[in-house]
Amino acid sequence: MSEDRVAALESKLADMEKRLTVREDELDVQKLQFLYGYLIDKCMYDQVVDLFTDDGEVRFFGGVWKGKEGVRRLYVDRFRKRFTHNTNGPIDGFLLDHPQIQPIVTIEDDGKTARMRARSTMQAGRHKDYVGDEPHLQARQWWEGGLYENTYRKGEDGKWRIHVLNYFPHWHADFETGWANTDPEYVPFPKTLYPEDPSGPDALIDDHWLWPTHKLLPFHMKHPITGEEMTAERWEGDVAREKARG
Amino acid sequence: MSEDRVAALESKLADMEKRLTVREDELDVQKLQFLYGYLIDKCMYDQVVDLFTDDGEVRFFGGVWKGKEGVRRLYVDRFRKRFTHNTNGPIDGFLLDHPQIQPIVTIEDDGKTARMRARSTMQAGRHKDYVGDEPHLQARQWWEGGLYENTYRKGEDGKWRIHVLNYFPHWHADFETGWANTDPEYVPFPKTLYPEDPSGPDALIDDHWLWPTHKLLPFHMKHPITGEEMTAERWEGDVAREKARG
Amino acid sequence: MSEDRVAALESKLADMEKRLTVREDELDVQKLQFLYGYLIDKCMYDQVVDLFTDDGEVRFFGGVWKGKEGVRRLYVDRFRKRFTHNTNGPIDGFLLDHPQIQPIVTIEDDGKTARMRARSTMQAGRHKDYVGDEPHLQARQWWEGGLYENTYRKGEDGKWRIHVLNYFPHWHADFETGWANTDPEYVPFPKTLYPEDPSGPDALIDDHWLWPTHKLLPFHMKHPITGEEMTAERWEGDVAREKARG
Repeated sequence: MSEDRVAALESKLADMEKRLTVREDELDVQKLQFLYGYLIDKCMYDQVVDLFTDDGEVRFFGGVWKGKEGVRRLYVDRFRKRFTHNTNGPIDGFLLDHPQIQPIVTIEDDGKTARMRARSTMQAGRHKDYVGDEPHLQARQWWEGGLYENTYRKGEDGKWRIHVLNYFPHWHADFETGWANTDPEYVPFPKTLYPEDPSGPDALIDDHWLWPTHKLLPFHMKHPITGEEMTAERWEGDVAREKARG
Repeated sequence: MSEDRVAALESKLADMEKRLTVREDELDVQKLQFLYGYLIDKCMYDQVVDLFTDDGEVRFFGGVWKGKEGVRRLYVDRFRKRFTHNTNGPIDGFLLDHPQIQPIVTIEDDGKTARMRARSTMQAGRHKDYVGDEPHLQARQWWEGGLYENTYRKGEDGKWRIHVLNYFPHWHADFETGWANTDPEYVPFPKTLYPEDPSGPDALIDDHWLWPTHKLLPFHMKHPITGEEMTAERWEGDVAREKARG
Repeated sequence: MSEDRVAALESKLADMEKRLTVREDELDVQKLQFLYGYLIDKCMYDQVVDLFTDDGEVRFFGGVWKGKEGVRRLYVDRFRKRFTHNTNGPIDGFLLDHPQIQPIVTIEDDGKTARMRARSTMQAGRHKDYVGDEPHLQARQWWEGGLYENTYRKGEDGKWRIHVLNYFPHWHADFETGWANTDPEYVPFPKTLYPEDPSGPDALIDDHWLWPTHKLLPFHMKHPITGEEMTAERWEGDVAREKARG
């Protein structure tokens, strides 16, 4: 009888370890993404790049930056030059806070892939006492809201890394005038690929949009009760309006 | 001796499984509430209703909508018609972001009831290029802060569902003028019950208030160190002022 | 053979209990900090003080308040008198929301010390209908963003308490004018110690700064992939500017 009880214990313990591992992974992936947020706040781009897998990619503002080289091109060649005078760190008068909010992590059955829906409500801008002559160095301040649908991979070393950072900005609002008055294409999408644009993306994403257009960024997971895909209807009034505008 | 050790292992493992289950439940309830947030952002009201128990209810803005029928009446008959031209999905030019922040989940001893205090800091409004003739279709933009004190139930299928969604808005602020200038009763409370109001509540909540009135929404849990109820004093100056105003 | 299997089970179970305990602690420390946020929102200072260890301290705005007496002096003698007419609770017309966002908790190897990086994006101010004659009772409204790097201790009673609350405000923004226009030293740092200032700090922190100055608040943890300290470069242009200003 004892043998049976021991076998039952072994089986039960193996089951519990699987359950525990899923939750450890969920929490560790969340920590990883939260750290990404703190690092990007502080323009610590070198440390951001180190969070990615070698085959990582970033999907951002209608562009795709592929592989560790592409990721580095975006954060270091593009952002660091534009935002921080090529400094790997925060600079006075420049704000780019990325609070990381509302993560839903799903660990895939293989135990090595994770997906996360999350969001950020950002504060960004440049202080009036720290302006420069160039257009992107003017005093400016804005709010931004966006969603993530990211993928992560667990390496053979047991560490989670970002595989695909898919950040989809949803709305921008000038601090002075707000989201009721946002101009269309508030931030211009990249249109030129690398290497013609030395810090440009490797590919463009066709189905991209910005507020006041408003669509559903698809969920990675099914509805937990019904088990169905969570899809949204599209109001034909808007579609008609878009068509009328050409 | 081995029998004793096996018995000790069985007991220890049962204890650990209880502990693990509590944390799984906490995390799953949090995921459920976070999904609610993503769905309501996108006006996917059908999928929101599916998150509730059959005897679920919503307590909102001084009204109570009871049972699955009441929940559907609020989200589908009331919100969907007012906000999205009866579309189950986001529409261009309409923003209603509900970031889900700061959840504290408590699993009751029965393992089948959960309570959560959480908050949202919302961005809402309608873009100037998407206005209509009716009053609720004008360009407008506001911030809103509020707290949840929700209840959840675990079904016989092992799935958590929302039992009582108790969202209590605390303050509103027009984007242009802020929370220092909010008009009293910024959003009018419902005063007419269903079925006189076809999408109205089944009951009214008497003790309701809005900023600049400011009271404590009671906590579902005790203070973790003292074990005492967490109650707040009320400043008599405000009370006197209220009485003077009649 | 069975003895070996039982020994293996005992070892495995002990290992899993350690892992589970780490996650329970992470989640409980997070709950503790989240509760701090809800209590401070509502000016429930007595209950806030009860969250600290006897040797707790608060590092805040360039000052250090030491020991339970110091903590009480800050929250009760300083904040309660300034903010709420000495009431232990929220008062009408006064807003001080502290959403608690993005916690990364690290449990030290001793199992009794925890560290957390977290943030808050606050809404604060006083409503125009609730002003008084004194300067701090005028109508005012502002946003504030800041980071925490806190320490917690697990007592012999198994309960976590706050040991060091280290809140470092990073930027302020008047609701009307925003973070592009913040005046230097938006909030004056305390300069007078206790007991000369009856609610003043026990010590001052030298290396303090406020937006538009922008530096890195050091991380308590190493980079999860490289294992290195996460340090930031400092732009010499800013440093030169600071020196020029004297």
